[in-house]
Amino acid sequence: MSGARNAEVFMRLGIVGYGNLGKACERICYERNIELTGIFTRREPCDLHSPYATRIYPQSRLEHFSSDVDVLALCLGSKGDLTEFAKRAARHFNTVDTFDTHADMSRYVSEMTDISNRFGKLHFIGVGWDPGLFSLIRALFDAILPSGNTYTFWGEGVSQGHSEAIRRIEGVKMAVQYTIPKENALKSVRNGENPTLTLRDAHRRVCYVVADEGANEGLIADRIREMPNYFADYDTEVNFISEEEYFKSHTLMPHGGFVLRNGATGDSSAHAELSLSLKSNPDFTASVLMAYAAANYKMRKRGECGVKTVLDIPVSELVDGEWIDKVKRFI
Amino acid sequence: MSGARNAEVFMRLGIVGYGNLGKACERICYERNIELTGIFTRREPCDLHSPYATRIYPQSRLEHFSSDVDVLALCLGSKGDLTEFAKRAARHFNTVDTFDTHADMSRYVSEMTDISNRFGKLHFIGVGWDPGLFSLIRALFDAILPSGNTYTFWGEGVSQGHSEAIRRIEGVKMAVQYTIPKENALKSVRNGENPTLTLRDAHRRVCYVVADEGANEGLIADRIREMPNYFADYDTEVNFISEEEYFKSHTLMPHGGFVLRNGATGDSSAHAELSLSLKSNPDFTASVLMAYAAANYKMRKRGECGVKTVLDIPVSELVDGEWIDKVKRFI
Repeated sequence: MSGARNAEVFMRLGIVGYGNLGKACERICYERNIELTGIFTRREPCDLHSPYATRIYPQSRLEHFSSDVDVLALCLGSKGDLTEFAKRAARHFNTVDTFDTHADMSRYVSEMTDISNRFGKLHFIGVGWDPGLFSLIRALFDAILPSGNTYTFWGEGVSQGHSEAIRRIEGVKMAVQYTIPKENALKSVRNGENPTLTLRDAHRRVCYVVADEGANEGLIADRIREMPNYFADYDTEVNFISEEEYFKSHTLMPHGGFVLRNGATGDSSAHAELSLSLKSNPDFTASVLMAYAAANYKMRKRGECGVKTVLDIPVSELVDGEWIDKVKRFI
Repeated sequence: MSGARNAEVFMRLGIVGYGNLGKACERICYERNIELTGIFTRREPCDLHSPYATRIYPQSRLEHFSSDVDVLALCLGSKGDLTEFAKRAARHFNTVDTFDTHADMSRYVSEMTDISNRFGKLHFIGVGWDPGLFSLIRALFDAILPSGNTYTFWGEGVSQGHSEAIRRIEGVKMAVQYTIPKENALKSVRNGENPTLTLRDAHRRVCYVVADEGANEGLIADRIREMPNYFADYDTEVNFISEEEYFKSHTLMPHGGFVLRNGATGDSSAHAELSLSLKSNPDFTASVLMAYAAANYKMRKRGECGVKTVLDIPVSELVDGEWIDKVKRFI
């Protein structure tokens, strides 16, 4: 079935980055019959192994593939050099990415727009789940309930950024951090109370830490709880566990969240809510990214160029088939 | 705030039909500073009263207003002559409607497409909440989780069609029917069990009936429960109440529902769910319709024409402001 779905899409995809997201995209290519030209990595290709025998190339050779790749999926971390890499790649490739640093988003899309104006490619930015699916829902909820309040909650799920922040503390061997929405806050929003929520009101943070032998656990816990931006403004629970327990219970990457809106309609009211529960954050993110990659291919073939976000891409571009069949199937 | 939101939209709206939906659209026009050219009715305009002193015209005069109306909102019942009316109006007007007879949808959009090809107007069809918001979500969920199962539940809420079917029974004075999703079915879907649900499994129907004096209540209850298509395939509860109780507790029109999708992503899974809870079905439907009316105006001004559904209209068209501001606000 999945092969048939993509019958109209014969795009040739390139993947940059071979971490969790890149690997999940690779798998989807094989599941959905998408031609995967290759994976491009900064690491030594010989050191990497693809379970599908995908060709792995050094990133430095990417430009040579500009006529073999229709859409390039940038599976790089937003904290690293994603934007710098994207700006170079945008001269030769149509791109899709899951850039997720909200604060830098408008600068990044502006810079990519300048590049697109010069090189005429099509770039989809921030097409994961937040930014991405959740952004689309926030805008949609705002449009259909213009008088109201929107809330976004994340979790229960693993925050990579917070986990990494803990790992940088001296004496920490391994660590994982779960972001958990506070039930009372969710309940208050659902009850239409439109609460004003501080960071501490909305989410709590639960950490599982494997300490180095002989490390001072009390000190580590204090340093976590007092860390500005990351933990100081939250109720933070720190649990020390064994390495065995870590590998047994904390290597998965679940995530999810909620977008909620309470709106007034005339004298009455409406509540709209999107919820998402993911067993694997990278697998789902890849699934969203690949849907937008296929849309990028179709839209570029029709001559579109520029920078687009989820708000600009009609949902009809994400599903295959004749227009009238989409009407029958979904409307 | 709502006035400011629509600063870029100076559309002049016409409303056809002055029932619950038309009245709710009228109110929104005044709340959001949308210029309302007039309401067009099949009834005798002198018999109708607008709380906003909107001009009310006979439908027969509609064509004379073709240069005074940018977008015409068709607030007519799908069971009546909406499609016939729309096909005539489409020669002179850009239209938006909430047509909701799923079975007739593809024929209607095909006929409207033919008319649009001749007359060059822009028509948005089925832009309420189902069809409409729920259609958009079904397609979006399908696109981002292509391997999976989608479920739609409606309610708890008043079904106009089922209420009317009861009212046609001899001896029934007043009646209202609530459609209620079965908790077990919802739970099973949320648990990822991907159940196969019969009509009876998914929803139950609860009726409140005011009988005529001396009417045989047992007979009425039997006729309701045995009614094919409407009730025979469901667990149907029939309650007889007084006229006083009816007016006290059953004149509101709440509704809502759920779109759920369980999808496989690689070796793991994801669950996405949209839920909607409406105190007033017509007020919310009007709110959605007016958001799409404003989008119709903007897109037509840029030269677009043809027939579009929610799948074809980017969400960015539904919210006002500069593109980069939308990025900052929602992405």
